[in-house]
Amino acid sequence: MTDRPSTPARGVRGPYRSGIRRRAQIIDKAVEVFSSYGYRASTVREIADRVGITPAAVMKHFGGKEQLLLEVLRVWDEAQLTSPRGTGLAALRGLRDRMVWHTEHRGLLELYLTLATEATDPSHPAHQFMTKRYARTLRDFEQWIREAVEAGEVRPMDQETLRYEASTLLAVLDGVELQWLLTPGIDLVGQVTRYLESSIARWQATRPEQPL
Amino acid sequence: MTDRPSTPARGVRGPYRSGIRRRAQIIDKAVEVFSSYGYRASTVREIADRVGITPAAVMKHFGGKEQLLLEVLRVWDEAQLTSPRGTGLAALRGLRDRMVWHTEHRGLLELYLTLATEATDPSHPAHQFMTKRYARTLRDFEQWIREAVEAGEVRPMDQETLRYEASTLLAVLDGVELQWLLTPGIDLVGQVTRYLESSIARWQATRPEQPL
Repeated sequence: MTDRPSTPARGVRGPYRSGIRRRAQIIDKAVEVFSSYGYRASTVREIADRVGITPAAVMKHFGGKEQLLLEVLRVWDEAQLTSPRGTGLAALRGLRDRMVWHTEHRGLLELYLTLATEATDPSHPAHQFMTKRYARTLRDFEQWIREAVEAGEVRPMDQETLRYEASTLLAVLDGVELQWLLTPGIDLVGQVTRYLESSIARWQATRPEQPL
Repeated sequence: MTDRPSTPARGVRGPYRSGIRRRAQIIDKAVEVFSSYGYRASTVREIADRVGITPAAVMKHFGGKEQLLLEVLRVWDEAQLTSPRGTGLAALRGLRDRMVWHTEHRGLLELYLTLATEATDPSHPAHQFMTKRYARTLRDFEQWIREAVEAGEVRPMDQETLRYEASTLLAVLDGVELQWLLTPGIDLVGQVTRYLESSIARWQATRPEQPL
């Protein structure tokens, strides 16, 4: 993936404009196919058909279905990470923007939830990616709550409560996302915002001796 | 296949003992295969192989992969519904037992979550089953909270709050279940119980003019 000289050797897949565009097209269609069928039932042929190229051409760009999946996940992950985060309560409130982003990228959300559940199976090629991603997200949420405590934005809480609150917050995001995909009439952004604000109010109001 | 009477009519598949046993075996293996691969990537051949019969024999019992899936879902649904429920807070607190049941039936939980996410696609054969099931579960949760209000177990809340609390509770169940499947160290029963009890405490403590 380096910037090649003007006379490309056979097999060169450098970042020439049309190569980049083609890769982007393949990833785009791979997201569609993976999120409709899940990873296991998806075929390189179906993805190639939607791009209008041969399966061999897809393989030339990505090596195989598994590498294509990992590339799709990497792209999805980076798209998520680009939003500014801040610290403490500002970072937590930023999750509202992530929900807005999901409503604008329904296909990617379907892909993520389908893969997260498929990948609970340790033999799934995205298993390691997903377990690491969940662990990282939980660490992020814990850190933001800890920052809020340290900045005096909310009252102190013990480590176990911090873990519980981080994990329950992540559960609410995943669960409301799933309901939003499955059932009409769910307001993803509104419901997550309400949960965030009522959690923050709870963390601010609770006296240390009271259960959260 | 079936335990035939001495002069069976063509097509008879009555509830003879060995027929029932064979159907149960097929459903058992279908749960394994569907929860490992998802519906779309599962094959009748794989299920048949695990039972030690031919795909044609599976088809004879269930007609096809789609009917087999719907039968598996029906069995799963009934298994869930057998637990006594009660009303109001007793019913809500009964969700703890459902989590215990999940920890004892990890394969069925994997199946349910994999299918719920796959079935967000309207063309999925379980789509209608899953959307109906989610709607019913939300109605159940709303009713239990309403019963708790009517019995004076918790303070009154408006209809919008009731819907929000029911939907967020379901989200917490799904989300914590997913984390339990994906990451080690999650205490499914403990975390859901804590969420339930802190929600109940919140509903009891809140004065009507305060936000929940």
